Amino acid sequence: MGVTADGKEHYVIGVDYGTLSGRAVVVRVRDGKELGSGVFDYPHAVITEALPGDLADGPDGPDGTAVGLPWEWALQVPEDYREVLRHAVPAAVHDAGIDPAAVVGIATDFTACTMVPVKADGTPLSELPGFANRPHAYVKLWRHHAAQGQADRINALAAERGEAWLPRYGGLISSEWEFAKGLQLLEEDPDAYAETDHWVEAADWIVWQLCGNYVRNACTAGYKGIYQDGKYPSEAFLAALNPGFKEFVSAKLERKVGRLGDAAGYLTAEAAGWTGLREGIAVAVGNVDAHVTAPAARAVEPGQLVAIMGTSTCHVMNGSELHEVPGMCGVVDGGIVEGLWGYEAGQSGVGDIFGWFTKYGVPPEYHAAAEAAGLGIHEYLTELASRQGIGEHGLIALDWHSGNRSVLVDHELSGVVVGQTLATRPEDIYRALLEATAFGTRTIVDAFRDSGVPVKEFIVAGGLLKNKLLMQIYADITGLRLSTIGSAQGPALGSAIHAAVAAGKYADIRAAAAAMGSEPGAVYTPIPENVAAYEELFKEYRTLHDYFGRGANEVMHRLKKIQRSAHQTAQMDAVLKGSNA
Amino acid sequence: MGVTADGKEHYVIGVDYGTLSGRAVVVRVRDGKELGSGVFDYPHAVITEALPGDLADGPDGPDGTAVGLPWEWALQVPEDYREVLRHAVPAAVHDAGIDPAAVVGIATDFTACTMVPVKADGTPLSELPGFANRPHAYVKLWRHHAAQGQADRINALAAERGEAWLPRYGGLISSEWEFAKGLQLLEEDPDAYAETDHWVEAADWIVWQLCGNYVRNACTAGYKGIYQDGKYPSEAFLAALNPGFKEFVSAKLERKVGRLGDAAGYLTAEAAGWTGLREGIAVAVGNVDAHVTAPAARAVEPGQLVAIMGTSTCHVMNGSELHEVPGMCGVVDGGIVEGLWGYEAGQSGVGDIFGWFTKYGVPPEYHAAAEAAGLGIHEYLTELASRQGIGEHGLIALDWHSGNRSVLVDHELSGVVVGQTLATRPEDIYRALLEATAFGTRTIVDAFRDSGVPVKEFIVAGGLLKNKLLMQIYADITGLRLSTIGSAQGPALGSAIHAAVAAGKYADIRAAAAAMGSEPGAVYTPIPENVAAYEELFKEYRTLHDYFGRGANEVMHRLKKIQRSAHQTAQMDAVLKGSNA
Repeated sequence: MGVTADGKEHYVIGVDYGTLSGRAVVVRVRDGKELGSGVFDYPHAVITEALPGDLADGPDGPDGTAVGLPWEWALQVPEDYREVLRHAVPAAVHDAGIDPAAVVGIATDFTACTMVPVKADGTPLSELPGFANRPHAYVKLWRHHAAQGQADRINALAAERGEAWLPRYGGLISSEWEFAKGLQLLEEDPDAYAETDHWVEAADWIVWQLCGNYVRNACTAGYKGIYQDGKYPSEAFLAALNPGFKEFVSAKLERKVGRLGDAAGYLTAEAAGWTGLREGIAVAVGNVDAHVTAPAARAVEPGQLVAIMGTSTCHVMNGSELHEVPGMCGVVDGGIVEGLWGYEAGQSGVGDIFGWFTKYGVPPEYHAAAEAAGLGIHEYLTELASRQGIGEHGLIALDWHSGNRSVLVDHELSGVVVGQTLATRPEDIYRALLEATAFGTRTIVDAFRDSGVPVKEFIVAGGLLKNKLLMQIYADITGLRLSTIGSAQGPALGSAIHAAVAAGKYADIRAAAAAMGSEPGAVYTPIPENVAAYEELFKEYRTLHDYFGRGANEVMHRLKKIQRSAHQTAQMDAVLKGSNA
Repeated sequence: MGVTADGKEHYVIGVDYGTLSGRAVVVRVRDGKELGSGVFDYPHAVITEALPGDLADGPDGPDGTAVGLPWEWALQVPEDYREVLRHAVPAAVHDAGIDPAAVVGIATDFTACTMVPVKADGTPLSELPGFANRPHAYVKLWRHHAAQGQADRINALAAERGEAWLPRYGGLISSEWEFAKGLQLLEEDPDAYAETDHWVEAADWIVWQLCGNYVRNACTAGYKGIYQDGKYPSEAFLAALNPGFKEFVSAKLERKVGRLGDAAGYLTAEAAGWTGLREGIAVAVGNVDAHVTAPAARAVEPGQLVAIMGTSTCHVMNGSELHEVPGMCGVVDGGIVEGLWGYEAGQSGVGDIFGWFTKYGVPPEYHAAAEAAGLGIHEYLTELASRQGIGEHGLIALDWHSGNRSVLVDHELSGVVVGQTLATRPEDIYRALLEATAFGTRTIVDAFRDSGVPVKEFIVAGGLLKNKLLMQIYADITGLRLSTIGSAQGPALGSAIHAAVAAGKYADIRAAAAAMGSEPGAVYTPIPENVAAYEELFKEYRTLHDYFGRGANEVMHRLKKIQRSAHQTAQMDAVLKGSNA
């Protein structure tokens, strides 16, 4: 496969749909060289407080008044995703300086679980007359956390009935996933639910836009859609949750499941017009940003744990056997590559915790000093923190500011810092937060091992790999050799690899990964005395983790409950005062 | 006593020695009116990192090189205290516009336990040739916390031997007090210990400077010197601690104990020269800043709990009976006023926690917004926090950033914040810290009541009474009617009241307090629905308080130990590298 049969270079395009933007990359099929890229920021970003007037005032919006959203909602706008195809793809082709006619395939990866309610032809409900000012008609982004009540009921009922699929998800189904969000749609906006012909992963919806076919992908169907051993949860289970939910699967979810790397179809004339690519090129089955990164990192063998570290961290790893690991996000047959069991775990807050801290917890003098030194605030705090010995700050933090995905699967948990004194400085807290996320990863690695799934190597992709202190801390705390992916755009490269396979240029993902995957970047080796010092601190983390996270003190749950009720009172007060803000 | 016998107005001067400055106030004997004041900042403030070159280079200092101090030291310079007499007293007299000859008495109050090692004539060791660059020759300020090891041994031995005095101090002697600091002096600098003829409270040393007599005051002797029922700990006890410590009491501590409000002596010619006052006027027995405030607030009856709220909070209250209250700082016969049992409790960090947070935890945008609004950062955060409903921030904090004095008496404890999320803002944490200190006070009120000491009223003095949100939170969390002292200089006024009694102008402190005490300021009444809402949050505080503070998880102790060892390693590394900073 080293050279093309016709002597001409072939290219593929990978498009990575993130939380705030979409990024397209042009990649050479022969060797995976990244030749050009383009980025497009979603005009509506993430909608958490109110539907903007420009939307609510849509086809028949009454007056452009913003529609307020309840607590913990997170919506997106489908048209923003099409815009990425119109802008980022041509920009990437232009940047690469290639002939668009030489592009033989395109593939996409997406955040998940991000859900779009659509009509039979794929039109999102939010684009229908009468639905523009209706929050439930929009895309529910992965970090929409308002379906926790539904998730709780799904989990309680599944446990009670002993549903066989439950242990495949570490014993808990997330409020972020297809069933909890679907049940919320039914229960909070039955009309919108009735209008919904398909409840579609955005990962599949964008492929549908490209090729005109609706094909589910094996990855989200398994990890987010509870699709195990060829079937979804039963009608009896769904009816017991809510009689109106009985036919959720048969009416709105069921669809052919495509294997990763297969073609879902071929580029339509309309999508060719958007992208400037040739009509009829291969469009790969959809995929998820994290999972698609494994082949980009050439990490498709059992025991190679890939951590995609950005605002949150997703861990993906193949295993040759099926094991049920407590607190995992899921284990799916062919969920990463065909023929292996794909394991997924996650940390719901990592980079966004560091970002939150630098935005809200660092005083003016530090920002001024960083600027004077020509450093960003993260770099400056990292520089100060890297001068410390292990434990010198006297702190232990729990990294649950966005809840805990693995191994506790509890979005109601929250952050803790223990050990602050009047001598505590911002760099101390910053370092403690870096360490807390590493202890979180260590907890996941331990859970894999304790369940019989070996972890041999740790490979990091994502924006955080640039932080050398953070990488060394992860190596020291996990005790694993840590390598970083050489490519700065792992997911898009991973998608491009899938596009090459869908276009028939390689036999399978493994072969394509070997040829096109990224060369490794920096490597970090655990330092024995650091490993020993952190072992002591990890014990403290573990004790607090279990105390706050496993029921000994449910203070975090109670605080959230009190907080919600105080928010509702405040909202009601505002309404009574005639305020609409 | 309404008018003076000779028809002329008489005045007294109260001098309040705080942590960073001394404040003198001129007060009219007839009615307590405050006529003028003067403040003087200690030139050397608090020395925590290194003896400054100007000191170490003293009489025979070798070269002015700064002498580094170990972790958790806090020293002061005696000459700074004399300077207050030279500057603040004349400034106050000038400010009042009175004839200095009309001043009939002077009294002082001091931070405690603050200890000065002196020769037989009262000369501080730090002023002797050969001692200027010797850290142990200096004043050990109340917040010198480096004698914890000694305090631990005192407590273990006293518990083992069943010493009758131990329950008078809530079961634990503090590392801040006379015996722990004295034992540290012996064990770390035996030569300085041998040179020390008297181990003197600064409260008594300054009186000695004024009148030439060394008289111990009943307050510090009882609360800090373990003087109970007319005696100190026995030689057998001291010898068991360390054979060299056997004669600590008889050789260095024992001295006549003066009653509060008595004259210790009369102003010397030298001190008259410093202050500009008449030689021979009455100089009252020394006192402590907190305790002296009770009469200034007219709160000298049983059940009137006075909280002096500044960087830390000291609670003082009289009771008609002796009860041993767990975790109190002490109960002393005549410790506040003659004829009643004086109870003391304390919170080692209050305003300094808020100050630490505003200095190190608030981002530039907030400082800019505060400035734009013409507010200080505390006022701005308070304004934002006061818009919240109770529990809306979702946080619970433990106010142990400076350790915990009452009721746990454990300086190794540290601060905790539970419940942070990416939505947490600085005003949320600020409010949680305000509330945490109020929960700390509530814990103290509960301990009094549970031990049979009634608490009927809550009176606040000190700088924090200006914060109305804070005051309402304290009223709501304690469920007590809260009044604030009208005077802005409670301790100095309290000292002035003592000066009037020492000068024979009133029969006793009660009579003088009735005539000269401050009119109350603002009053705060508990709001029933707030009381109920906080009751729920207080349960959470209490659970965390007991978990972290009573042995279920000694993580804070272990973190301090790890931190100390990391600091020592860092210091050793610095030494090995030839650095002396």
